[in-house]
Amino acid sequence: MEQVYKNVELTGSSKESMEKAIENAIERAAKTIRHMRWFEVLETRGFIEDGKVAYYQVTIKIGFTVDNPDVA
Amino acid sequence: MEQVYKNVELTGSSKESMEKAIENAIERAAKTIRHMRWFEVLETRGFIEDGKVAYYQVTIKIGFTVDNPDVA
Amino acid sequence: MEQVYKNVELTGSSKESMEKAIENAIERAAKTIRHMRWFEVLETRGFIEDGKVAYYQVTIKIGFTVDNPDVA
Amino acid sequence: MEQVYKNVELTGSSKESMEKAIENAIERAAKTIRHMRWFEVLETRGFIEDGKVAYYQVTIKIGFTVDNPDVA
Amino acid sequence: MEQVYKNVELTGSSKESMEKAIENAIERAAKTIRHMRWFEVLETRGFIEDGKVAYYQVTIKIGFTVDNPDVA
Amino acid sequence: MEQVYKNVELTGSSKESMEKAIENAIERAAKTIRHMRWFEVLETRGFIEDGKVAYYQVTIKIGFTVDNPDVA
Amino acid sequence: MEQVYKNVELTGSSKESMEKAIENAIERAAKTIRHMRWFEVLETRGFIEDGKVAYYQVTIKIGFTVDNPDVA
Amino acid sequence: MEQVYKNVELTGSSKESMEKAIENAIERAAKTIRHMRWFEVLETRGFIEDGKVAYYQVTIKIGFTVDNPDVA
Amino acid sequence: MEQVYKNVELTGSSKESMEKAIENAIERAAKTIRHMRWFEVLETRGFIEDGKVAYYQVTIKIGFTVDNPDVA
Amino acid sequence: MEQVYKNVELTGSSKESMEKAIENAIERAAKTIRHMRWFEVLETRGFIEDGKVAYYQVTIKIGFTVDNPDVA
Amino acid sequence: MEQVYKNVELTGSSKESMEKAIENAIERAAKTIRHMRWFEVLETRGFIEDGKVAYYQVTIKIGFTVDNPDVA
Amino acid sequence: MEQVYKNVELTGSSKESMEKAIENAIERAAKTIRHMRWFEVLETRGFIEDGKVAYYQVTIKIGFTVDNPDVA
Repeated sequence: MEQVYKNVELTGSSKESMEKAIENAIERAAKTIRHMRWFEVLETRGFIEDGKVAYYQVTIKIGFTVDNPDVA
Repeated sequence: MEQVYKNVELTGSSKESMEKAIENAIERAAKTIRHMRWFEVLETRGFIEDGKVAYYQVTIKIGFTVDNPDVA
Repeated sequence: MEQVYKNVELTGSSKESMEKAIENAIERAAKTIRHMRWFEVLETRGFIEDGKVAYYQVTIKIGFTVDNPDVA
Repeated sequence: MEQVYKNVELTGSSKESMEKAIENAIERAAKTIRHMRWFEVLETRGFIEDGKVAYYQVTIKIGFTVDNPDVA
Repeated sequence: MEQVYKNVELTGSSKESMEKAIENAIERAAKTIRHMRWFEVLETRGFIEDGKVAYYQVTIKIGFTVDNPDVA
Repeated sequence: MEQVYKNVELTGSSKESMEKAIENAIERAAKTIRHMRWFEVLETRGFIEDGKVAYYQVTIKIGFTVDNPDVA
Repeated sequence: MEQVYKNVELTGSSKESMEKAIENAIERAAKTIRHMRWFEVLETRGFIEDGKVAYYQVTIKIGFTVDNPDVA
Repeated sequence: MEQVYKNVELTGSSKESMEKAIENAIERAAKTIRHMRWFEVLETRGFIEDGKVAYYQVTIKIGFTVDNPDVA
Repeated sequence: MEQVYKNVELTGSSKESMEKAIENAIERAAKTIRHMRWFEVLETRGFIEDGKVAYYQVTIKIGFTVDNPDVA
Repeated sequence: MEQVYKNVELTGSSKESMEKAIENAIERAAKTIRHMRWFEVLETRGFIEDGKVAYYQVTIKIGFTVDNPDVA
Repeated sequence: MEQVYKNVELTGSSKESMEKAIENAIERAAKTIRHMRWFEVLETRGFIEDGKVAYYQVTIKIGFTVDNPDVA
Repeated sequence: MEQVYKNVELTGSSKESMEKAIENAIERAAKTIRHMRWFEVLETRGFIEDGKVAYYQVTIKIGFTVDNPDVA
């Protein structure tokens, strides 16, 4: 079958690590998006407070298969 | 009038050609998006099986006019 | 708290200026998106009629906090 | 009909604003190019004198339809 | 001999395929440019009408050898 | 298992189409590379002769799983 | 003489316009940097409050001639 | 108030992780720069010794508010 | 001596972290490549299963000194 | 005065050096373009014959002031 | 005939010049690769010792025709 | 030890060659920066006078180890 994917962009944040920031974004997306297949890191940033990393912010693009008419 | 467009990103796939992959993505998007105006190719990839192209995957950005409050 | 943002892409247009094109896009987005935090300019284009700028078109990415399950 | 466009690159300058720099470039191009359709901003720079912006320089690509043999 | 090339940018369009859009641009350029040697695809876009691809638009850079004083 | 892939870059050419140029590159690679999984288009160019496209040249990156010590 | 320039990066902000954001950055830089010659816009962003642009943020690179040993 | 930021580029290194490399760079910068606000990852590299990662090197851009005349 | 390096591109994967994905790729490369000196991260992606990160995929370029005729 | 510049792209070649390739392109352009002001290197390539550099090819963008109606 | 090329990436170094760094890389590659056709400069770097350039490092991509089964 | 580097950007100019422009920038930087380790070429431009190259301008990023509190 010839599949169609939709790609959305999210930014996750975490005080701990880049991986945790990505996982937070995907966990949040999983509440409303089914059939997520892959992600790609677009940008890694962060905020600094008192001379230390306060949290990491990782922006990712998530691709998911489009399986019903109300998603696109 | 000063028009506003929303841009979404889709990936279409096809065993035949890049054009067919694009057309599949647009055909699928047409089920839920009205007033699509243009597209731009962002990335062309594909999968290989048994040493041959299994299918093409073309990622496009589609722009459409925003005409009612529940689209953006 | 570890916040998640969703980023969407819009193109605003204006006969007057780039700033007005951006503001038109954001004003339109505000009808359906709450909690918008920032934007980034991705592309600036325009149309020409009779040898003059007919209108500016500025494409922006808007980031907003995701606060309920039906947004992502 | 299947139209062909030619794209040329110009840099306009203005003491006032980026928009005025773009308009100066297009106004100048209009003296010799007919049927201009669109532009895209490629680069925005400027010169500084005495600690202030002396003028803005905006480089644009202009697309126009090719309608006679002596243009390309 | 130490050759000099000039590069120009054209956008061809076609209802059928990307290849046809490129060939239309080159065919049109051939009316006024001699000694074209190569091209490079810069951008692939298209217009959509009634939920289908209306035509493909491929922007290419064409390189040609400069052989007489009135070309550059 | 945690798979490792090697990526190589090839340029295929074809008088007919971009797809055929890609397929020629992959067909040639299949003579010496096993377990190819995907490709990505990096660049599309071509040569011009007598004012027409002589052939398309498509540069792709091919990813394949590394399964024995003499491949990397 | 063979001049050397140093380039620094600043982000200016303004509630009014992109030009004013650039001018604010340059005005601030002028307090400590002499002999500034040019700038280049690297990025244009902004913050949104209550569904409106709160302020524009323009990041520029400023080049200045190095004229004494304590600048570089 | 219309704030001005200065952006500087640092490369931190760590034997452990990318996050630790970033934190080392920021910790070092904190000795001389006050009011750091954010960072952005520009490049991630590393050195290899004896077939293993010897250390990660992450290059970041740090933005800080300019609050006195001797910083810019 | 004037050294020559060869650069190859590998993609490592890991369920745990980006660092582990990089280390897996380098560990695998070490089986056949001697004298590896550095790496650079080119792309970070991943796969998602059941709404969670299944594994990270990091593509790196590895540089190694060319010390014998059968490597290049 | 608010000056307008036109930018054209040329590729020069030389058996000797990159600088000579650039100078060949500019020398050739000087036959038909007056008031050239600056150039920017876009791409550096070359051809190889018998395992040695046959010649360098440097593609540059040249900016010149537009001073009469038949140039743009 | 429809030719296939393989592209490899090498970094050459030289105390003298960028051209010599490129030539060193190609001369080294010529020991194992036949039928090299072209190169493209990807990156120019260098090392500094005692406040002077110690050597230039130029990374190039080399394309060669694939003429036998054991090359790809 | 886990080293931190600071990166600064300079533009050197030379009537002779790109290498000389780079060396001029580094020679100038050496007056105030100790422990410079490497550079990377970011941009190559130049000025034209009377249809000839007046001088080359090469912009480089220089990395140096941060060894005392008053450098960053």
